[in-house]
Amino acid sequence: MDIILASASPRRRELLKLITKNFTAVAIDADESLDDNISAEDAAAVLSKRKAQAAAEMYPDSLVIGCDTTVVIDGKVLGKPHDPQQCREFLRLLSGRQHQVITGYTVICGDKCVTGKEVTDVSFRTLSDEDIDWYISTGEPFDKAGGYGIQGKGALLSDGIRGDFYNVVGLPVSALYQVLKTFNIQED
Amino acid sequence: MDIILASASPRRRELLKLITKNFTAVAIDADESLDDNISAEDAAAVLSKRKAQAAAEMYPDSLVIGCDTTVVIDGKVLGKPHDPQQCREFLRLLSGRQHQVITGYTVICGDKCVTGKEVTDVSFRTLSDEDIDWYISTGEPFDKAGGYGIQGKGALLSDGIRGDFYNVVGLPVSALYQVLKTFNIQED
Repeated sequence: MDIILASASPRRRELLKLITKNFTAVAIDADESLDDNISAEDAAAVLSKRKAQAAAEMYPDSLVIGCDTTVVIDGKVLGKPHDPQQCREFLRLLSGRQHQVITGYTVICGDKCVTGKEVTDVSFRTLSDEDIDWYISTGEPFDKAGGYGIQGKGALLSDGIRGDFYNVVGLPVSALYQVLKTFNIQED
Repeated sequence: MDIILASASPRRRELLKLITKNFTAVAIDADESLDDNISAEDAAAVLSKRKAQAAAEMYPDSLVIGCDTTVVIDGKVLGKPHDPQQCREFLRLLSGRQHQVITGYTVICGDKCVTGKEVTDVSFRTLSDEDIDWYISTGEPFDKAGGYGIQGKGALLSDGIRGDFYNVVGLPVSALYQVLKTFNIQED
């Protein structure tokens, strides 16, 4: 059975290798428009399903995996920062507090479709303006939701998490592995 | 100021690079005997201090970092498993429960010495005999305290942590970074 990861993210690709090396990663365009009143948790699950469904149409004989990761604080979703100023705003918002990283995931194979979501709480240290300027100067924030990468120097901004670490990086490998087992896809 | 990491662990070396690339890692022999009545938390701090002190004697003009990581369940310290049978015992003990990973760390520079410890709770899924056999067959367990590596396929055994993920890998980078700041060692 071919496995398709419907994601262009190199980080997700690396993480899926913890489960299996036999898959193909493909970039999938899916409609990302959402109802205004949808919650952030539901949004991640809905978007993961759209990506998986789009991939399943292209690869009907494969098992496909779709994911969507969002960073949420006070019910507000933080995307990838457009510029240093927005990155500064994001990091000030996250400073000294706990926020949520939510990954929705959907696995489709033939008629079977399983959608779930994984939530990890991430706590940030209180950041000084100097801390924030330093972190922006590393160049890490700009391709990452929420403006930080916990797998890089962003680790120095956080003093702990509650939940699955790899969910914060972008793929909840442990939960996904349990789901894949129900599709009879085993690790190798 | 030269920085010496008193550890031969390639994992610690990679993690310290999140803080600085300018350091030298050296293997240090230190007395690892302990009083019978010492707690696991205190043991990690005591051993980290011994390693740092031994390194400080060899490199008196450098800043030295010593670390010791222990995996603890029911007050019992799990070392590196000697063979598949012991590994099976460890994983059965960890299955379906929470345990603690404790890293003691000591930084010495001249007359200044700071010792601390970081504790992370790690939860394991309930593991079947099949899960355990599979994980042992990956070859991952044997050079790792507690018999698993959360940075590898061991991630699939855990359903979450509470605390610093990198502490479980072997170096509490976020706490250590805060301590190093007090020595005026900044990231680069």
